[in-house]
Amino acid sequence: MNLQVLLASRPQGWVTESNFDIVETPVPQPGTGEVLVRNHFLSLDPSMRWRMNDAKSYTAPMALGQVMVGRTVGEVVQSNNPKFKSGDKVAGTFGWQLFGCSDGSDLRKVDDTTVPLSAYLGVLGMTGATAWIGLMDICQPKANETVVVEAAAGAVGSVVGQLAKLHGARAIGIAGGSEKCRYVTDELGFDACIDYKAGNFQADLMAALPQGIDCLVENVGGEIFDQLLTQMNAYGRIAVCGLISQYNSAPYPLRNFSSVLVNRLKLQGFIVSEHPERWPAAHQELAGHLAAGRLKYRETLAQGLRQAPAALIGLLKGRNFGKQLVKLI
Amino acid sequence: MNLQVLLASRPQGWVTESNFDIVETPVPQPGTGEVLVRNHFLSLDPSMRWRMNDAKSYTAPMALGQVMVGRTVGEVVQSNNPKFKSGDKVAGTFGWQLFGCSDGSDLRKVDDTTVPLSAYLGVLGMTGATAWIGLMDICQPKANETVVVEAAAGAVGSVVGQLAKLHGARAIGIAGGSEKCRYVTDELGFDACIDYKAGNFQADLMAALPQGIDCLVENVGGEIFDQLLTQMNAYGRIAVCGLISQYNSAPYPLRNFSSVLVNRLKLQGFIVSEHPERWPAAHQELAGHLAAGRLKYRETLAQGLRQAPAALIGLLKGRNFGKQLVKLI
Repeated sequence: MNLQVLLASRPQGWVTESNFDIVETPVPQPGTGEVLVRNHFLSLDPSMRWRMNDAKSYTAPMALGQVMVGRTVGEVVQSNNPKFKSGDKVAGTFGWQLFGCSDGSDLRKVDDTTVPLSAYLGVLGMTGATAWIGLMDICQPKANETVVVEAAAGAVGSVVGQLAKLHGARAIGIAGGSEKCRYVTDELGFDACIDYKAGNFQADLMAALPQGIDCLVENVGGEIFDQLLTQMNAYGRIAVCGLISQYNSAPYPLRNFSSVLVNRLKLQGFIVSEHPERWPAAHQELAGHLAAGRLKYRETLAQGLRQAPAALIGLLKGRNFGKQLVKLI
Repeated sequence: MNLQVLLASRPQGWVTESNFDIVETPVPQPGTGEVLVRNHFLSLDPSMRWRMNDAKSYTAPMALGQVMVGRTVGEVVQSNNPKFKSGDKVAGTFGWQLFGCSDGSDLRKVDDTTVPLSAYLGVLGMTGATAWIGLMDICQPKANETVVVEAAAGAVGSVVGQLAKLHGARAIGIAGGSEKCRYVTDELGFDACIDYKAGNFQADLMAALPQGIDCLVENVGGEIFDQLLTQMNAYGRIAVCGLISQYNSAPYPLRNFSSVLVNRLKLQGFIVSEHPERWPAAHQELAGHLAAGRLKYRETLAQGLRQAPAALIGLLKGRNFGKQLVKLI
């Protein structure tokens, strides 16, 4: 049997498990030219929260009763498509379910002989590409410039900081809790990490940023972003790839927008899926660093699809450590 | 005698006349290599308000007791510099005074035989270049896109909208009062103008913007900007050249920043004086339109330097109509 998680109702504020229905359905049969894929991992991403709303955004909202959308990696188990054979590992967008059929147009064959399959949902997937495009294409840090990223222990933030260091910049992370901050500095090699839960944020920020901020890859938004705006250097660049703090609540009122003028900043919002032409370059650099041991990552695995709702809730509350995945097999 | 207006005290909130001292001093004597200029017009600009504060910004704050800074046009009346002769018309930065000396390095000779001298403080000066760089370099409107500008009857806004039309875009202005709005549509040729004082702003905005906003040259900031953010189209561009609404009061809390991500916007703050390499291109296009009668402008003249403080206060409250100048002679 297939197992699917459906959007049962739209959350008001924080997501709850009651927003989901879990249903058993027959394993689908691939039609002519189609393949059947058994998913091994499902990626959970903060942007899923946004798509649960019935609001205008960069993607259509999910319909009630629909299988929750999401990126997956898995294995072809039956193929009516000459481009794929049983046993091929593929990255796709089957959503929150164990099996799915596809004509192959949205599948990418991946090689899990040298890196774990799950990496294609993280450092070699959407979050790695987000970090790379935000930092390398939009922010374009110069040597010795200061790069700041929030959720620095997370899937995007961890790659941003490590990439910044590899390109000769200074990397400052912001994360919640001393354990995450230790990981960010001691294992990922950031120059400093500010624990926003330590209760001394503004002073810690000033101490960690004597040279101000040149590049900011912004994935959280809200109050911390507002404070970071005041520390931007002249001609700073801000790549906005997520606003996780805004997904569950009324928007935080930003008071320091004038920094955009005072410091002649450039800001750009972007969605990684709209830059497929940049993925090969991102993949090439990240895969090279990964193979050479220069790029570290961590995953938080939820065990089994039935745990996916709780895992998404945890992700939105910052309980994950690194990339949040659901192990399906 | 020379007459000078000095910064006497820093305003708390709105500027008042008590923030200025008006003093008579001897006419300065030009030294070796210097010229003495008699100023004919002084430009008043919203950014002067900012420079009266003792706050970090893109320029150093003015010191108390200093002559108020400002751009001027005038005539060389004595020259010890072989590059200038008596009678030359020059644009400079002598500030709020009738006479000034310069070694010539900050002077630009201007030709007032075909256009009025005062135009070099407006459409052929800083405000024209601001409009041109914001629209043409940063926003880069395509034909049939929608360009929005606030203070549309003002020195920057009026040029932005007319340039937009000349490049095949749709121009929507926002201005305070029906008289300004009539001028914006009937004389400047904008497609529509929204009177933000009419008490029906949101509905009027929606009615005037059925196609959303592609380009915004932002010179005001605050509540209206916050509402405009919600109307941006995907891949919209925002050039931030001023935040006049923020200069006198606590910053307006911006609630719709998420539009930057949702609509994948590009924003850039800029200061026209930092782009001298673009002034010739701006000047060439604007002078051509002006000579051909395709570019209209209006000036509000205060008579005499003693009226400058009241005129700046009026400018900050939106009482001017077009470019605010002080006629000194």
